[in-house]
Amino acid sequence: MATVKADTNATAVDIDALCDQMARDAKSASQQLPLASTVAKNEFLMAAADALQQAESRIVDANARDLENAPMYGLSDAAIDRLRLDGKRIAAIAEGLRAIARLPDPIGETLESFRRPNGLQISKVRVPLGVVFFIYESRPNVTADAAAICLKSGNAVILRGGKEAIHSSQEIVKVMQSLLAKFDLPTHAIQLVPITDRAVVGKLLADNKCIDVAIPRGGKELIERVATEATMPVIKHFDGICHVYVDTQADLAMALNIIENSKCQRMGVCNAMETLLVHESIAAELLPKLQSRLTPFKITYHADPSAAKLLQTSTPATQSSWSTEYLGPEMSVGVVTSVEAAIAHINRYGSGHTDTIVSNNYANVERFLNAIDSAAVVVNASTRFNDGGEFGFGAEIGISTDKFHARGPCGLRELTSYKYIVRGNGQIRG
Amino acid sequence: MATVKADTNATAVDIDALCDQMARDAKSASQQLPLASTVAKNEFLMAAADALQQAESRIVDANARDLENAPMYGLSDAAIDRLRLDGKRIAAIAEGLRAIARLPDPIGETLESFRRPNGLQISKVRVPLGVVFFIYESRPNVTADAAAICLKSGNAVILRGGKEAIHSSQEIVKVMQSLLAKFDLPTHAIQLVPITDRAVVGKLLADNKCIDVAIPRGGKELIERVATEATMPVIKHFDGICHVYVDTQADLAMALNIIENSKCQRMGVCNAMETLLVHESIAAELLPKLQSRLTPFKITYHADPSAAKLLQTSTPATQSSWSTEYLGPEMSVGVVTSVEAAIAHINRYGSGHTDTIVSNNYANVERFLNAIDSAAVVVNASTRFNDGGEFGFGAEIGISTDKFHARGPCGLRELTSYKYIVRGNGQIRG
Repeated sequence: MATVKADTNATAVDIDALCDQMARDAKSASQQLPLASTVAKNEFLMAAADALQQAESRIVDANARDLENAPMYGLSDAAIDRLRLDGKRIAAIAEGLRAIARLPDPIGETLESFRRPNGLQISKVRVPLGVVFFIYESRPNVTADAAAICLKSGNAVILRGGKEAIHSSQEIVKVMQSLLAKFDLPTHAIQLVPITDRAVVGKLLADNKCIDVAIPRGGKELIERVATEATMPVIKHFDGICHVYVDTQADLAMALNIIENSKCQRMGVCNAMETLLVHESIAAELLPKLQSRLTPFKITYHADPSAAKLLQTSTPATQSSWSTEYLGPEMSVGVVTSVEAAIAHINRYGSGHTDTIVSNNYANVERFLNAIDSAAVVVNASTRFNDGGEFGFGAEIGISTDKFHARGPCGLRELTSYKYIVRGNGQIRG
Repeated sequence: MATVKADTNATAVDIDALCDQMARDAKSASQQLPLASTVAKNEFLMAAADALQQAESRIVDANARDLENAPMYGLSDAAIDRLRLDGKRIAAIAEGLRAIARLPDPIGETLESFRRPNGLQISKVRVPLGVVFFIYESRPNVTADAAAICLKSGNAVILRGGKEAIHSSQEIVKVMQSLLAKFDLPTHAIQLVPITDRAVVGKLLADNKCIDVAIPRGGKELIERVATEATMPVIKHFDGICHVYVDTQADLAMALNIIENSKCQRMGVCNAMETLLVHESIAAELLPKLQSRLTPFKITYHADPSAAKLLQTSTPATQSSWSTEYLGPEMSVGVVTSVEAAIAHINRYGSGHTDTIVSNNYANVERFLNAIDSAAVVVNASTRFNDGGEFGFGAEIGISTDKFHARGPCGLRELTSYKYIVRGNGQIRG
């Protein structure tokens, strides 16, 4: 690795050798990490938090280089702002590490334990997944956060951050790496890919001997590429086409609050509402009030014919409107004749992320909760609550839209597997 | 489907249309199955068990056609015996369905439930995975068993059995399918691919919109093909290179029992021992006794130099011996100097399936249990216990060698996911 410099495009041979070495080092670290004590992991995280704050000037200097390069990458002003690190933001990163240190250690937890008639005592015990390959875009705070989450859950991590933040990420990782040995943690528990060549991702995604899971975090294109190329399992974070359905017996004031919050509290996120479905019995009362309420947000309404009649301004919803994740000041609006019609619509067009019913009708609520197959099904609350922090997980590496392994917010426990420990006193099988 | 006959090679267009229709039907059934009551599922399974026994003569007739074709497929006598169905075997299949009916329903179980400071009540509730594509070889009893396991766990299943048992499987599935509607279960909850063209597998493995998980059960070649081609998650069942390590403070009589049982009770299975590691302090006493004890089994010993000195006859172990799954009367034997050396060997050459330590040394046992990263880590008992039946799961669809989603024996619960149900009274995010 000493011959490879950041931001240079290494030769193919360098990349192969680099990736092989990183993967092998991570695998080796992952065999030692399950044995690390909770105290060692927590003290490391606390020390790393302090060290990051002490290294503030070095990190800010590195960040300045990323900011210099930002125009070259065509970053928007908003993206440049997210990239920027200062004392306050570094303090927030450090505080994130301390929060992860204070979370319970998932490793070693006995998930269940039972005794068989032949006297065998079988325990199902939580263990790390092994090696996590985490591929993410831009924001440098994610570097520290992901490293901390993986370490606390006993996983070795290979971080592949965006080129836009490479100097900041390198400085952050350098500070964290330098403390691992002091707490008897394997020095390759946390690694950052030192070059930005895209071939690195393909090479590492091919290595399912050393890497146990790939986690992409970023735009749809990145996630699709990783899902296609990966030879190991992937925890995916795809579209959030989230719905709010306002039922016939809804509290209108509550419905307006929930719609506004679900759509407008933060528009560019996966758990924001994209489609509003309203029962025909209350549409005439709700929709005009909603449009007036949301005036400041300048929303474009893609409305079906029934909804269009009740809205002052709207554009016709097309077939594709119902499958669109706007991530901005637009929403699809439909009028439905029953909770069953709402369920059918959501199960057809939804993305299985987060869907809310607003209702005081017991039977309809229960039907909705049972029939909607989404990571989070919500009654009388905003879609925006499907989030690791809001669920009280303390830290999250993403929100899974998969049903396999982990679904919804992925915190420490979602980065674990289990093994069976079988204790006997000479049993053989008859 | 009416135009496609068993054992004919359909045209490409037929196959595409057939697979699309089966997958869509399965998806549609999977949206209704989570709502099926436990009573309906259990009564269906009990009725199907009775119906299979009542259809004995039809099933035996169909089986006779498979037996007629067996020479064409080059089946061994043992394989032909496994293929054969008679009244007793059909009764056993029926009893298997009744046993699954008596198991607790995993669906709807609340895995955890907690209240957030803002009053949101969040529950994590077990739900089915959705559509299972199960690809398996020969034995027709697996058809009924897999259909029952998937139905009980709320999953729609597409069964793709081996061509050698196609007529038997079709008759069994026909009996089961004909009862679904009577219990208000979706009629496409259980489907069998009616043709044996291999292109069907590739086509269905490409459909990750409708199929949630692929489960291959059979030889390594089949599993590798499915793992490579599948665009959806796969529950894999790879090699079992299982170890027994006899530690310095072992009970020798117990060690001999456990080695014999692990190696010889059934040699062709994944949880049979393939490699024996013995601590140098007891090798001189153990190995000659072992060789004498196992004389009836005519074992070939692939021994390292230290072990070879203590065995009357052996062949030298090569580097590849340690990674070989013999599945027959052969074993690799090595002498090690410490529990650490045994752990290092197993973590290097093992397949993460099942590994046993025989020891009365507390510290060594605990070190082994913590450091070995296998689906089952066993102390003082046979490797043969890593099995759904022996674990008390009641039914199993396979033993996973993955760490992602499910590890070890896969019963009803391992075919499930979860969703979060969030109950509020107007909460919005601040």
